[in-house]
Amino acid sequence: MPEHKIRVDFEPFGKRVGIAPGHTLVDAARLAGLPLTSDCGGGGSCGQCVVIVRDQPDALSALTTTETDILSAEQLQLGQRLACQAELLQDVKVDVPFFSLITGQRLQVESATGEDLLPGTWDDLIVKPYQITVPPATLHDLRGDLDRVLDVLAEIHGCTGLSASPMVVRLLPDLLRQYHWQVKVLLRGSVIINFLPPNAYPLGVAVDLGTTKVAVYLVDLTNGVVLAAEGRPNPQIGYGEDVISRMIYVKNKPESAAVLSQAVVGVIDELTQLLTAQVQRSLQEVAEVCIVGNTAMTHLLLQLPVGQLAMAPYVPAAAAAQEMRAADLGLSLHGDVRVYVPPCVAGYVGADLVAMTLASAIGQDDRTVLGIDIGTNTEIILSKRGTRRLVALSCASGPAFEGAHIRFGMRAAAGAIERVWLNPEGPVVQTIGNGPAVGICGSGIIDVIAEMRRVGILNTHGRIQAGQPGVQPGVHSLEFLLVPAAQTATGEAILISQHDVDEILLAKGAIMAGIQVLLAVCDLQAQDLDEIILAGAFGTYLNLDTAIAISLVPNIPQERFRQVGNAAGDGARQILFSHTARKRALQLAREIEYVELTVYPGFRKHYARSMWL
Amino acid sequence: MPEHKIRVDFEPFGKRVGIAPGHTLVDAARLAGLPLTSDCGGGGSCGQCVVIVRDQPDALSALTTTETDILSAEQLQLGQRLACQAELLQDVKVDVPFFSLITGQRLQVESATGEDLLPGTWDDLIVKPYQITVPPATLHDLRGDLDRVLDVLAEIHGCTGLSASPMVVRLLPDLLRQYHWQVKVLLRGSVIINFLPPNAYPLGVAVDLGTTKVAVYLVDLTNGVVLAAEGRPNPQIGYGEDVISRMIYVKNKPESAAVLSQAVVGVIDELTQLLTAQVQRSLQEVAEVCIVGNTAMTHLLLQLPVGQLAMAPYVPAAAAAQEMRAADLGLSLHGDVRVYVPPCVAGYVGADLVAMTLASAIGQDDRTVLGIDIGTNTEIILSKRGTRRLVALSCASGPAFEGAHIRFGMRAAAGAIERVWLNPEGPVVQTIGNGPAVGICGSGIIDVIAEMRRVGILNTHGRIQAGQPGVQPGVHSLEFLLVPAAQTATGEAILISQHDVDEILLAKGAIMAGIQVLLAVCDLQAQDLDEIILAGAFGTYLNLDTAIAISLVPNIPQERFRQVGNAAGDGARQILFSHTARKRALQLAREIEYVELTVYPGFRKHYARSMWL
Repeated sequence: MPEHKIRVDFEPFGKRVGIAPGHTLVDAARLAGLPLTSDCGGGGSCGQCVVIVRDQPDALSALTTTETDILSAEQLQLGQRLACQAELLQDVKVDVPFFSLITGQRLQVESATGEDLLPGTWDDLIVKPYQITVPPATLHDLRGDLDRVLDVLAEIHGCTGLSASPMVVRLLPDLLRQYHWQVKVLLRGSVIINFLPPNAYPLGVAVDLGTTKVAVYLVDLTNGVVLAAEGRPNPQIGYGEDVISRMIYVKNKPESAAVLSQAVVGVIDELTQLLTAQVQRSLQEVAEVCIVGNTAMTHLLLQLPVGQLAMAPYVPAAAAAQEMRAADLGLSLHGDVRVYVPPCVAGYVGADLVAMTLASAIGQDDRTVLGIDIGTNTEIILSKRGTRRLVALSCASGPAFEGAHIRFGMRAAAGAIERVWLNPEGPVVQTIGNGPAVGICGSGIIDVIAEMRRVGILNTHGRIQAGQPGVQPGVHSLEFLLVPAAQTATGEAILISQHDVDEILLAKGAIMAGIQVLLAVCDLQAQDLDEIILAGAFGTYLNLDTAIAISLVPNIPQERFRQVGNAAGDGARQILFSHTARKRALQLAREIEYVELTVYPGFRKHYARSMWL
Repeated sequence: MPEHKIRVDFEPFGKRVGIAPGHTLVDAARLAGLPLTSDCGGGGSCGQCVVIVRDQPDALSALTTTETDILSAEQLQLGQRLACQAELLQDVKVDVPFFSLITGQRLQVESATGEDLLPGTWDDLIVKPYQITVPPATLHDLRGDLDRVLDVLAEIHGCTGLSASPMVVRLLPDLLRQYHWQVKVLLRGSVIINFLPPNAYPLGVAVDLGTTKVAVYLVDLTNGVVLAAEGRPNPQIGYGEDVISRMIYVKNKPESAAVLSQAVVGVIDELTQLLTAQVQRSLQEVAEVCIVGNTAMTHLLLQLPVGQLAMAPYVPAAAAAQEMRAADLGLSLHGDVRVYVPPCVAGYVGADLVAMTLASAIGQDDRTVLGIDIGTNTEIILSKRGTRRLVALSCASGPAFEGAHIRFGMRAAAGAIERVWLNPEGPVVQTIGNGPAVGICGSGIIDVIAEMRRVGILNTHGRIQAGQPGVQPGVHSLEFLLVPAAQTATGEAILISQHDVDEILLAKGAIMAGIQVLLAVCDLQAQDLDEIILAGAFGTYLNLDTAIAISLVPNIPQERFRQVGNAAGDGARQILFSHTARKRALQLAREIEYVELTVYPGFRKHYARSMWL
């Protein structure tokens, strides 16, 4: 016969444990992973392990003299008990005030920022879910529904000065009556942003809004864990491939501002619905959205004016963090759910760089670190040892590394050539998925250009040399035959044209010129770099040897490189759920110095030099 | 030849004065009605009269040694001067930090609440207009537009931690460039709710949302002065004459909630546009809305659920104050302009009673005062000397006093009989505008019933007695001929039927029963009342002698009555613009005890007795 167990429900956590009769509430709380503060070790003398049990006096052993000594008459009247004194007799529901918990216990992420909050702890959560039970309305308790919720939050959890908008209050009367006066309250600062059924939990959506690609992450808002993720092309590409042409489009056609905004909002909305469905959760549970992107992207998203951003002196309408109701932005999210856009640094260094810097911890120790987030716009940041300086800039590297403007270029998908070797016997290629080649992606095109230079097909100025093996006349200029028609998936030969080479040289030249300017501004040489962090999908998959060979990145030992994946997206995830991360982002946006390349004296010289191979 | 005068502009007030050269800035500020703090009387030793003059050092006399002694290097660098030391040489623009002003100087309204804020002072304003000039964007000052506004507000006015939503930021870039980097910032708490052209000033809209009538007041938000006012019938009447029937309509047809809300929002919107046009101001300048009404009215307005309010135990979805964006409610107001609905007391004692209590200062001194706001729902409040108690209830008096349900009833408009005397020679009537009678309004019907009882046409039970002068058989019962057909504007005789008398007896019985219950709850007699305050249009125009004669109100000396007009509307006006009033309203809503008539033991007895004449 199985041992009889008593069920103990701990609110507001919605945690239930089974435990044998006679144990104390301290034992049950420990079993539930909710360690209660107890300086006296359970003797009842410190009075810290206060819990609240209402309307079920028989579920626990009688009040001890220790409790009647320690607790005030008001505390006893509110049903407060010392958990170390109360033994379990029957199933019971217990409210745990947060002051009774050992704070910091739920710590999962190390904080290197010196903030007093620890990521992942209760106090650090942007959205706090409180599960509460309120006294039912009767002719002798005529308080409003919202008012009884506010009273419980104040009395049990010490949350005062709260408000809830009518949009949120509308949900409350039905929920309370359907779930027997139990409800999950989502609190954000002093605002109740939603009411949910008792067993729901808040989800968040982190978005990396790139010029070319939109990446969406569905996140557990109580601990920052990514539950699902998905990407899509940025549909604004139809209105201009780069940010300048999109901004000019909107400037000339102000009525199109809403169209461009709704295009990306639609993608974020679609992916949010898809991801919540994938993990079998409800869209109602989504309680916060954080979107990072370059300054132009976030301006277009929020329909902030871009006229002054597209022309000198290129100033944002707002560099400060922006926040608005998700519903106002057009997302299918209800209640008072907010979209948060972290601060940007300048007109061309946006919240994405702030998020990337945060996630890769640049500037959080005293080292000289270069961070590069390669995309259609490439942002570069440098921290200098011994100075606490963070200096950043942005360069228009274009979409060539994403396969655009390259004749046989494609995104990094099945069939894309990702590695190339030019052996004496001829070219050898490796494709994603190892099937026949369809085209060539960013890492492949860097490989092929490095190899073409190594074997002498390209000279130092990047010109294709006639008479070299595989070089043949093309429509406009010489071309290099990489994969013959018979070996491709399409039946068409894959060729590298002079135009392709020029596109890549322009892109890599822009990035290297930016790096050189940053090093010059900080009075550093490449060899001084303790670390180079390569962020973004392309930066993660590129081959360091060939990237160094074409001087896309500085030539320092490969062990000093760290390829970190989508750091901007990861920063968005952190800023989404954690106050510590949000504060750190505000601090970074203030601290990062911006270099405007177009007015930097040495820029043209650096750019011209960086085009060489 | 006119004396040469120097123009001095004081910001953020946008005040300009002309003054002869050689005067100090203290003199100019006094002339502008902006008295600067100066404990030392102008000697320069107290250092309190700090003002800021940027970019115009030549407009003032050189820095004195007193100034260089008193002001820090940072203060001098920010362009700070001591106004008592700086003499005027040329036209100049001066920023006055609020800490330099004698606070309380703009006091207009006496505060009896013991709050530290004084109504009408700068700190007390709900919406504060800051007129600022920001440094222009250049290639050497790349801050965002919002960021330069935030910096000036922090540096000059000490306002930090501010935010502005994208909806508001959208307006900023064009405004700054159109008005040479000058802008009016409307600050509400820590939120910038709108940006306006430099010379605009914030307006507010106060609304008394009655069951039968909507009254709208356009108010200067910087001092609470009413600029224009207008009323309209409540269009929800088409969905039910009383609140219960409207709530049941919405409960049975949830999709109609938006329809009923939009009906009143449409009236408020129309009147707001009309009133701003009347005073030749822009709708853009409207920066705050405050709406009071009974609990059902504000629930229907905000589309809060009413199912639980229409049935026992009659609890509101929210008694707490509610706030939402005006645009979300459907008002044609832009930016982050908010609608504020003050707290209510209970399901049938709403924000209108709170506003009425506030405006008529009930409970702000130690007297026994009865406040009555007669309407379709009549709210009654009693303060008891020596106890600090405030007790309130509500009774369903119906719309008879507004002319509804009375055969020849009409609103108090031209042609309405407002006074009646039954002389031995026959009835004498006085109409509004003194023209031929069209119908009879509330005060007239009370007169006629009191007179009919006095001369014996009605007995103590309110039955029309056959054989009395003017009494004739009607369709269903006996009738009394008040005005013969030949003397009316319509050519139809004006008659008072038994049904009319019954309606008025029901209404006045409900009110008197409520008064009796309140007196009983507080253990008082009518003679203990120091004052009876009659609020609302009807309460203001009724004739005290006949109202006492039919026992609509207690029989105490007439000098103890005070007829105060639309006190609920005036309370809404105060809560609209003043923090002091808003805090007092929150305090009142907490303090007022509510008596639920339907469960009060003696109610039926009181009601039955109150029906007698």
